[in-house]
Amino acid sequence: MGNLGKQTISFPNKPYIISAYSLGGKKESEGPLRDWFDDCLRDDIYGEATWEKAESKMLKTAVTETVRRSGKGLDEVGAMLSGDLLNQLMSSSFMARDMRIPFLGMYGACSTMTESLIMGSVLVDGRYSNNVIIGASSHYCTAERQFRMPLEHGNQRPPSAQWTATAAGTMMISSESTNEDIDVIVESATIGKVIDAGIKSANKMGSAMTPAAVDTLLNHLEDTNRNLDYYDIVLTGDLGFTGREIMKDLLQDAGLDKKAIDERYDDCGAMIYKPEQDVHSGGSGCGCSASTFAGYVYKKMKRGEIKRALIMSTGALLSTISPFQGESIPGIAHAVSLQSRPKN
Amino acid sequence: MGNLGKQTISFPNKPYIISAYSLGGKKESEGPLRDWFDDCLRDDIYGEATWEKAESKMLKTAVTETVRRSGKGLDEVGAMLSGDLLNQLMSSSFMARDMRIPFLGMYGACSTMTESLIMGSVLVDGRYSNNVIIGASSHYCTAERQFRMPLEHGNQRPPSAQWTATAAGTMMISSESTNEDIDVIVESATIGKVIDAGIKSANKMGSAMTPAAVDTLLNHLEDTNRNLDYYDIVLTGDLGFTGREIMKDLLQDAGLDKKAIDERYDDCGAMIYKPEQDVHSGGSGCGCSASTFAGYVYKKMKRGEIKRALIMSTGALLSTISPFQGESIPGIAHAVSLQSRPKN
Repeated sequence: MGNLGKQTISFPNKPYIISAYSLGGKKESEGPLRDWFDDCLRDDIYGEATWEKAESKMLKTAVTETVRRSGKGLDEVGAMLSGDLLNQLMSSSFMARDMRIPFLGMYGACSTMTESLIMGSVLVDGRYSNNVIIGASSHYCTAERQFRMPLEHGNQRPPSAQWTATAAGTMMISSESTNEDIDVIVESATIGKVIDAGIKSANKMGSAMTPAAVDTLLNHLEDTNRNLDYYDIVLTGDLGFTGREIMKDLLQDAGLDKKAIDERYDDCGAMIYKPEQDVHSGGSGCGCSASTFAGYVYKKMKRGEIKRALIMSTGALLSTISPFQGESIPGIAHAVSLQSRPKN
Repeated sequence: MGNLGKQTISFPNKPYIISAYSLGGKKESEGPLRDWFDDCLRDDIYGEATWEKAESKMLKTAVTETVRRSGKGLDEVGAMLSGDLLNQLMSSSFMARDMRIPFLGMYGACSTMTESLIMGSVLVDGRYSNNVIIGASSHYCTAERQFRMPLEHGNQRPPSAQWTATAAGTMMISSESTNEDIDVIVESATIGKVIDAGIKSANKMGSAMTPAAVDTLLNHLEDTNRNLDYYDIVLTGDLGFTGREIMKDLLQDAGLDKKAIDERYDDCGAMIYKPEQDVHSGGSGCGCSASTFAGYVYKKMKRGEIKRALIMSTGALLSTISPFQGESIPGIAHAVSLQSRPKN
């Protein structure tokens, strides 16, 4: 039975993540995670005519490389689950057109990576499919002009604003292990609820998403009867520098130990850029956590340097028109527990 | 094992659809399916300040009624999977904010209803959740102004254009049956591939989606080793009057029997309006197939008037900007096999 608790499902068959690919943009190649990407773009346009087509091509590169590294043929992949920030999931839909793999579009704003990972793991764990590819992407230029201002406008950003990462991350989930020394498995997952803290500024997305991240994390720990120190590392998606500090405060308020938090908690949006990179409150976008999980986290787990990771992509579910209708920003966060296991 | 064939998964535990709700708009209440809706709006605004909020409220009404009819408490619902046509799934996201149920956003344009139904059935069949609610919605006024022109513009539409239905449909999928005489179960499903026939006009969406619908249907029949006459009824989502005729032609070209097609195949977009309603090529929108499946199909199955139904929502995966970048319209279709079973 996969039903662990109120919000948490377990994966009794322990689906394997057998390959992954992490692609960054130029700015990301200059940040602290530079050595963890599999590749980075030299410029924002990636040889395409538009930024949207460039983002779609990034996802296609990541999917193609993940399939190649898995050793599986395209016809062995039962489904592909992917999403992005663009209206109607343009990056994912147009990527899927070229892949001829059964496709399911996912949307959870910046929470899309763990949403896709959860549903992909369910398909494999439940034996509905032997191999499923999952992924997510974002691009600074496509997101900025869709959600905020034309780039040419050169508008100023407040210190709490975040920088949408130009990045993509993909993983192949499989029912069968590889011949490598260490397996990375999907152990359990907590599906998040939509929580709205009443914040209305799209320049304060970290703050808007944090209550949802706290709720999902606390529910995960309660459902699994675990303490925070069960995990070597706990990462949120993209709360950024501002949201990360709010998250720590709220977790302490909820009774979690400060030392336990400080030793293992961090945020992809705060990890992907240096403050000197003029990104204000750090990174955001589906690709931020997607590339960090598919790069930094996955590679560290394959090396055995991380044994238990709780990864939580966080999403701000505002729309391009909801702020104009006076709406605040609903937040969501999904958590996935990954474990690395030496074969020995 | 749930893996039936290349693209088709079966549900060995036969999840039950234990309740459903179908909500139409005013125009839909004047069409041929009027008696199959559970309720219809008196006007487009539904007591809200904007059409977007009206659409979100429609989905909330449908979800709330489906939960009530199921006899389950909100805290017994493990997950809610929903989507719509609005950028960032505004209708679904803002509905989910009020429901406090773990939420997963789905996007497959007008294919969203069967996408949600497939993933919801996987969660229940695999015993990851005992009760899952799924749904989709659309609204003529929100879709028209997002995808085409401001309504106030009063622009003319070519004969091949479709009318986005103002409608919502929701279902509760459960691992346990009810005490009613006839069960409706989810038997198998085929996840569709993205197929692009090169059509570039958003006024020819039926034609753009038809090749994907043909591909999914033929793959479903091949994977399940069935003929078309296995089903009492085969319904596509919203190819409309134009697309329905193209579908019939293409199926005949593929070798299917004309009589078998004519006797059981129809399209929700061609069923939901009368040609005299000035809807040109018929209905479209996530809500078109969602409300037809949750109303007409579900109720007929509960009465035993349909025993085996293959329902296929079809999606046109264009974005609000892809046509301006010279892109054609990728199509997708997902098929779900439903069966009604008398308890004896």
